[in-house]
Amino acid sequence: MAVNLAPPDRAALAPVAGVELGFAEAGIRKRGGTDLMLVRIAPASRVAGVFTQNSFAAAPVQVCRDHLARGGAIRALVVNAGNANCGTGRQGLEAARRSCAAVAKALGVAPEEVLPFSTGVILEPLPAERIEAAVPRAVATLAPDHWAEAAQAIMTTDTVPKAVSRTVAIDGARVTVTGIAKGVGMLQPNMATMLAFVATDARVAPAPLGRMVREVAEASFNRVTVDGDTSTNDSFVLVATGQAAMGEIADERAPTYAALRAAVTEVAQALAQAIARDGEGATKFITVRVTGARDEAEAVRVAKAIAHSPLVKTAFFASDPNLGRLLMAIGNAGIADLDTAGVNLWLGDVQVIDRGGRAASYREEDGARVMKPAEITVRVGLGRGAAETTVWTCDLSYDYVKINAEYRT
Amino acid sequence: MAVNLAPPDRAALAPVAGVELGFAEAGIRKRGGTDLMLVRIAPASRVAGVFTQNSFAAAPVQVCRDHLARGGAIRALVVNAGNANCGTGRQGLEAARRSCAAVAKALGVAPEEVLPFSTGVILEPLPAERIEAAVPRAVATLAPDHWAEAAQAIMTTDTVPKAVSRTVAIDGARVTVTGIAKGVGMLQPNMATMLAFVATDARVAPAPLGRMVREVAEASFNRVTVDGDTSTNDSFVLVATGQAAMGEIADERAPTYAALRAAVTEVAQALAQAIARDGEGATKFITVRVTGARDEAEAVRVAKAIAHSPLVKTAFFASDPNLGRLLMAIGNAGIADLDTAGVNLWLGDVQVIDRGGRAASYREEDGARVMKPAEITVRVGLGRGAAETTVWTCDLSYDYVKINAEYRT
Repeated sequence: MAVNLAPPDRAALAPVAGVELGFAEAGIRKRGGTDLMLVRIAPASRVAGVFTQNSFAAAPVQVCRDHLARGGAIRALVVNAGNANCGTGRQGLEAARRSCAAVAKALGVAPEEVLPFSTGVILEPLPAERIEAAVPRAVATLAPDHWAEAAQAIMTTDTVPKAVSRTVAIDGARVTVTGIAKGVGMLQPNMATMLAFVATDARVAPAPLGRMVREVAEASFNRVTVDGDTSTNDSFVLVATGQAAMGEIADERAPTYAALRAAVTEVAQALAQAIARDGEGATKFITVRVTGARDEAEAVRVAKAIAHSPLVKTAFFASDPNLGRLLMAIGNAGIADLDTAGVNLWLGDVQVIDRGGRAASYREEDGARVMKPAEITVRVGLGRGAAETTVWTCDLSYDYVKINAEYRT
Repeated sequence: MAVNLAPPDRAALAPVAGVELGFAEAGIRKRGGTDLMLVRIAPASRVAGVFTQNSFAAAPVQVCRDHLARGGAIRALVVNAGNANCGTGRQGLEAARRSCAAVAKALGVAPEEVLPFSTGVILEPLPAERIEAAVPRAVATLAPDHWAEAAQAIMTTDTVPKAVSRTVAIDGARVTVTGIAKGVGMLQPNMATMLAFVATDARVAPAPLGRMVREVAEASFNRVTVDGDTSTNDSFVLVATGQAAMGEIADERAPTYAALRAAVTEVAQALAQAIARDGEGATKFITVRVTGARDEAEAVRVAKAIAHSPLVKTAFFASDPNLGRLLMAIGNAGIADLDTAGVNLWLGDVQVIDRGGRAASYREEDGARVMKPAEITVRVGLGRGAAETTVWTCDLSYDYVKINAEYRT
């Protein structure tokens, strides 16, 4: 069902020096298949992450925050699919720590050097013993060219694995950025999305890396939404192994910072868009572009009011140019002093709203024509300022209901 | 499909002295049937209303606000279904004013003494000439006992007309409160719902009536949601004809104020609940009760985070106790300093979350049992204070998608 989204081309996924990936079947996800993923990270790498803003942050998110707060080395990531280990109390924290300990033992590192991640059903105890049993098998498969298999192992209701790779010349060196993600539903990332891991061999100091992971999240995963529900487990981790032949990026004013951030953003945006293309039940990929806002936050509010409206999303599903719903959604964005007479809206190349009302040039058949394709762009001009943003989303179909009504069965 | 909602019992709908209702088929709603509703209000009646907070308030809402702001008498309401007359610019305002003029002429009152209302598709020109043609036919049917027909004439995708009546003794007099409403989708009323009209023969001064309509809206229509989308046409009007044999309610400190407000609130809550029971595609009626909040706004935020979550709503549709989604939704309510260890949650009589985690006593079969019935109560204790609220909603089914994908066809 994913909209114009092919499985990753293995040949196009460049290994990142200093990163190896492994996988195993731990028997946690009910439908079977690989559901445990392991990343081994070379010494001297730097790791930064951003995590969910949901108050009920899952146990692995709490452990990740603890381990990163130490400021020491991070040598491995361990991820299970099929169980979110959230709302599981002390037992859940213990299960997350046991996963770390199992990996630490197998790789000869400290437990605090391992970051744990989980995705799946909330409020179910995580069977840590299955992870402990599967870790040695995952270790046995560790290899630099297992990005595609890693993307496969973290899927829940994703229909297509998501992996993206870019290379860029920085400071005379060839730098690689490769990442994987999983998405689907419960998806309005707030600071980060439901599990995305991006690695680069660039050399970056801790402070600018921490800044970069936040900036990239804001421009990519925080601009995609499927259903407006923010998961308890959202995590986006950026690993920089420093093995490329370049000078270290010491701070965010270095020109190399901008070059690397552009490459990482490109990978993250491609992953974020892949998540919307493979949103639960998606039949359409929708790009919502808002311009003329007073500030970016206002632009995001309007874009998300459109992207979250069930009525707008069902109209897209039906290819029905019931475009008054777009007007309704903009009006619900909560902009107190919005002058509706300044609002214009285009669907593809067709102007629908002209200065707050139906455009005189608008004809129903033009609306029907631009609603048909699998990819649709909505462009809103607010006429209030110079700020703008882009948000990616998908439609709301029978299959969204079906998938989520039957998720656990 | 409506959940435990029968059509109104005509015998139980008490006429309100000073109010007559008429109806006609104006040919505006595509599926046919009566789609024009008229209310004649006796002289010396008081009328107060609250309207949508959507920035794109429809033309009739703008005209209502103008006419009410004059402070003069209101002698009639005119309502069409099938076209929202929203996003229609100057032409739309003119169409709304032509509707008022047609009614004014037929009833021998001033155009400014008529309030217009519209519900239906947004961004389509309203054919005012059809309303003008139908008004005389509606006038011919005016009668005090046409509440059921009036409820029928304002329906769009409603499957059941909604009308409620109560009588109460106030100041020694028998006072009647009767109201009608229409609801369905695009429904998270903000200050008022998509068309509700309540009339009473009580004697109330303008100031306390204006206060009462806001207080009642807050406790009824502003506590119901179907899909979180706030309509451009939401209107709730309270008419007090003053024909009951009682002293005038001069201000909100009068004991009679509280007695009347209780009766009006009872009618409004029954109508609001009817709207959730007949939400588009509804198969379940859900009551979300939040206690232990610091203030009511916080309680409403948590209740609506649950009531709006597509994942929670699809789980109710499936009768699937995937209750981690409730925890996720609470965590997304945006309460910055929420201590999750203080959160408890019950589904019916079953405790699911105990101090922020899965209750030790919780068994899957108990969850399955309480998810089965057509009416389900979710109770959340936040453990932060003494404020509380109740919100009513419905589930998210295949039919919600179907109805909204096919709305205009």
